[in-house]
Parts: sequence; structure tokens; C-alpha cells
Amino acid sequence: MSEALPSWREGPTRAAIVEFIDAVTTEGSPDFVPPEGRVAVFDNDGTLWTEKPMVVQLHYVLQQWKAAAEADPSLAEKQPYQAAVSGDLAWLGAAVDKHYAGDDSDLGLIIAAVSAASAGSSVEEYEASVAAFFRDARHMTMDRSYAHTVYQPMVELIRLLDAHDFRTYIVSGGERDFMRLIAQDYYGIPTQRVVGTGLGLEYDAEHNVVRYKSALAFFDDGPEKPVRIWMRTGRRPILAAGNSNGDVPMLRFAQGNPRSLALLVNHDDDTDRGDAPYSKGAEKAIEAAPAHGFTVISVRDDWSQVFPADSQQG
Amino acid sequence: MSEALPSWREGPTRAAIVEFIDAVTTEGSPDFVPPEGRVAVFDNDGTLWTEKPMVVQLHYVLQQWKAAAEADPSLAEKQPYQAAVSGDLAWLGAAVDKHYAGDDSDLGLIIAAVSAASAGSSVEEYEASVAAFFRDARHMTMDRSYAHTVYQPMVELIRLLDAHDFRTYIVSGGERDFMRLIAQDYYGIPTQRVVGTGLGLEYDAEHNVVRYKSALAFFDDGPEKPVRIWMRTGRRPILAAGNSNGDVPMLRFAQGNPRSLALLVNHDDDTDRGDAPYSKGAEKAIEAAPAHGFTVISVRDDWSQVFPADSQQG
Repeated sequence: MSEALPSWREGPTRAAIVEFIDAVTTEGSPDFVPPEGRVAVFDNDGTLWTEKPMVVQLHYVLQQWKAAAEADPSLAEKQPYQAAVSGDLAWLGAAVDKHYAGDDSDLGLIIAAVSAASAGSSVEEYEASVAAFFRDARHMTMDRSYAHTVYQPMVELIRLLDAHDFRTYIVSGGERDFMRLIAQDYYGIPTQRVVGTGLGLEYDAEHNVVRYKSALAFFDDGPEKPVRIWMRTGRRPILAAGNSNGDVPMLRFAQGNPRSLALLVNHDDDTDRGDAPYSKGAEKAIEAAPAHGFTVISVRDDWSQVFPADSQQG
Repeated sequence: MSEALPSWREGPTRAAIVEFIDAVTTEGSPDFVPPEGRVAVFDNDGTLWTEKPMVVQLHYVLQQWKAAAEADPSLAEKQPYQAAVSGDLAWLGAAVDKHYAGDDSDLGLIIAAVSAASAGSSVEEYEASVAAFFRDARHMTMDRSYAHTVYQPMVELIRLLDAHDFRTYIVSGGERDFMRLIAQDYYGIPTQRVVGTGLGLEYDAEHNVVRYKSALAFFDDGPEKPVRIWMRTGRRPILAAGNSNGDVPMLRFAQGNPRSLALLVNHDDDTDRGDAPYSKGAEKAIEAAPAHGFTVISVRDDWSQVFPADSQQG
């Protein structure tokens, strides 16, 4: 595996990954796991691609909210539509800060408006809407398409796992069907392996379509992640990777195996490579890492590049 | 494909299946579907294996209920525990008849008792319990293990679809994790492709396990089947197979594709091959078959054998 993971610097983190894959895939190894048990789960925002200045899904729904407020001006007086119309995103940032401080009042408004944006649409209509977004959208601060905001080292890790007969899943607090539109193209992860927050769904027999209802069905974060992993796979994964407090239960769940690898991406990059350092929402995970034996990935030290090499042309 | 499907008699049903697979998997065909879109969904009870004299899961929970009533004699005075202790299964049959007549009062008692049987168990404890059941259990009227109550022609169909790069799923009203214990061994369908009714789950951080709660999370039947298929796969399947009224939405959902195959198993077998004729719970599906263009599989006419050839030794 010496030529694998070219965007990872030599060091203990890369060595731990290579050693783990070798141990669980080498027949005769005491830690050998047959292919059917090789399940690896990855958080998405902040783990597989950038989540700054805001999660990508929020960029999409801001466009939807703005359009909704243009169609119904009374909405523009209410949050989060007001923020979307004015382009003043401070309210959204404050809502997230309140969430981290334990106050979900504004987050509730955001979740309700996220659900409202797709309510009544068929899954196919939503697919077309999200696909159109990804065709045109540019990252808000970096001059590139979202295809070029993926973390190149993590894509290389997924490729290495593929080559060793792992099944890789996304397990994210982001909305499932939104991520499905890019998971194959950006990461090589097929739609059936995307697990995320679920908008309520119902079958419309008259039109023979599945439609979104007006409320969230479940929020796939924290202790919900192990539950959703079990529902989807019927397995306890042997590798889990995340970057925030909400990923701790998923990392711990993987660690219930005799041999496992729990990876925590630490956004400590203070260079000018495009992903600013931050730890908000990850403090507990980083603090707990030594006690739990999480393998911490330092973006600054372990990755020789963050984004794909051709990002400037993206 | 002339040597495929050896337990299927020559005739229009077998020909329709072979022609469909050929049309969607031959490059250059106007109906060609790339491998990622080749999703096939199968109901389980009555479609892939016998459901008479009762669905197999009920055999398992009867044992659990009997054990629970022995541990707590007060339970033995209540249904469905009373039926389990006495071995008088007429009450259960009557409950199902009431369900078909639109009265789910007794079904509610059964569902509550099914949930109670696993409440508090970890998913691993439940796996061990169900695995022990399948090691020892014999079919209630036919002298064989449940491994020998699968429908051999349907297993051959799954193998043929595998050989043509389909992904086959079980989509059943039966409980998901119960079916997962046998899906690979009996049908060659892996755990991540088993969709079914879900018992409520929660993550127990202290013990690092996922546990069953005391209530059902959702019942995967009728209009819920297309919803659960979408959640699991992010696709509209191109082949669906079922045998009852509750499968009609799933068959119709598949038919929303430009080319699809909707199969309805009709239990019209009046020979002595072991699966008695019945249509209860399937009347509407059979009646609607011509209008909807379902391909009806006659157990009597289309299958040269129902169960695997070595069933008598099972």
C-alpha cells in the first residue's frame, strides 16, 4: 500500500490506517474480517468535504427560501426567509451558535423551513432541483464548484477501502436525498449507501410517486447515527470517521468490535490551503479522543493537500 | 438463458421473465438499464418462502411468548400469550381474519406482544435468539427445517438476476432483523438488502449497543413499501415481486419505469406438492392484475417444483 493515499503525509496517522486495513483484510491475520463485515461509515460535512462557511445543503435551501419569499412576500418578514432574501447570513450563524449552546429555538425554524422547501415534491422533482443546483453552484468564498471542495485525502481513503472490498457508507446529519445527487460522482459512494437525515415521505398512489411530507422524519446525528447504521446495514461498522461531537456515538459504536478504526478529522489547518481552522461543535469529540482511542487526523499535519489538485480550475 | 430457471415450466410466465431480463441488460437494447439501476424487490412471506400455516416469524414469537408466560404466569391469562401457552392457534387465525375484514383490534395485541418479546434486547442478543430458533425449528406441518420451505423457483430467479448484475432486496411486512438471519443463507441476499417492518431502536451509550424499544417503529406493508424502498435504495425498482394486496403499491411503484416487470405469485396449487391453495389477503391484487399488467405466476402451472428437491431430507 506504499503508493496509496498520496495526499497523506507519512506519519502515525497514515501508518495507523494502512496497518488497520492490512490487519483486517489479510487472511490468517488474527484480526481478519471477511468482506461481508467490512463496513466503513463516514460523516459528510467537515469529514468528506468542506462545511465552511456553511454546510452545502444550506446554500441550496437559501436559494429555495429566496424563491419562496419572492412568490409569497409575507414570508420575507419571517426567519429564515428574511436572511435568505437579504443575504445577511449572520442570523443563521447565530442560530447555529445557539444550537451549540443548547438552545434549538432558531434551529427549529430552520428545520421547519428546510422541510417546507420540498414539501409536496416527488422524489424525482427534488432530484431535478438539487441536480440543477449542483450544476451551477459555486462555493461561497472559494472560487470553485462544490465538486472541488471534497477532501482529496478522504476520497483516496475511500478508494483504498474499495480496493480492499469494504462497503463505504455516508452517515450524515445532512439530508439523505440531497447527498445522493453527488455521492457517486464526488466520492464513488452509490445512492443505496447514503444514510442521512430523512424528510418525511408518503406514497401517492394516484400519481404513483413518493412525495415529501411537510415535516422531518428523523435527524441523523449523535445517538441516532448508530441506530440508522444498524437499520441500513444490519452490521456494526469496523471503521468510522467523523469530525464533530455528533459523530462520537458512531465512532464508539464501531469500537465495539474486536478490531476497529475510529477516525476524527481535526480542523487545525492554519495555513492558506482553504479550510480555515475551527473546532466549534467538535470540542467534546477532540477532548474525548485520547480516552476513547480515536485516531485524530490533523488537517494541517497529516494531509499534504486538502482539496483536489485542480481545484483552482474547478 | 435456456438452462436458467430449471424449476420453471416453459410457458408465457417464464418467457416474460427471460425476455425482460434480456431487454434491460443487453447493451444497445432500447430498454437497456445500466447496472446501478437494476434494483429488484421481493416480498418474503408467500413470495420467497411458505407462509402457511402461519408466517415463520409467528412461530418464533410463539416460543418467546410461551417462555414469557412461564416466567410471568399472569401473562398466560391474556392474548396472545394464552394461545401460545395452550397451543390453540385458532385465536391467532381469527385475529388475522379480523384484520382482513378491517378490524385490527386483535392484530394490535399481537404487534404489541411482538415488540414486547424483544424490548430491551440488544441487536446482538436478538440475533443470537433468532439464530438459535432457526437451528432447531421445524416447519409446523411439513417435516423439514425452514431452509427447505423456500420456493426453489424464486431462488433460481434471484440467482439469474445476480448473474445479470441486479441488486435484489427483500421488502417485507416481516420484521427486518428476523429475516436478516436467514436471507444470505436461504436466498443469497445480504443483510444490507433486507427491508422490513422495524422495531423501534435506540442507542445505549453506556453499554455501547443498539437496543430494541418496546414499540414498533413502522409497519412495512402496502403504501409504506415504496417509501421504505426509496429510503433504502434511492431508486425506483425495475422488478418487483409479491403475492398479496399489501404488495400492490410496490408493484405499481416499479411500473412507473419505462420498462419494468411486476410479478404476482398466485397460490393456486391444488396438487400435493406441499403449499395448499389460498387467496385470502390476495383477492384485490389478483383481481387488479390484468388491469395493471401484473405478470401472474401460477404456482400450479408455472413451477415444476415448489420446494428444493431435497426437502424431504431437510
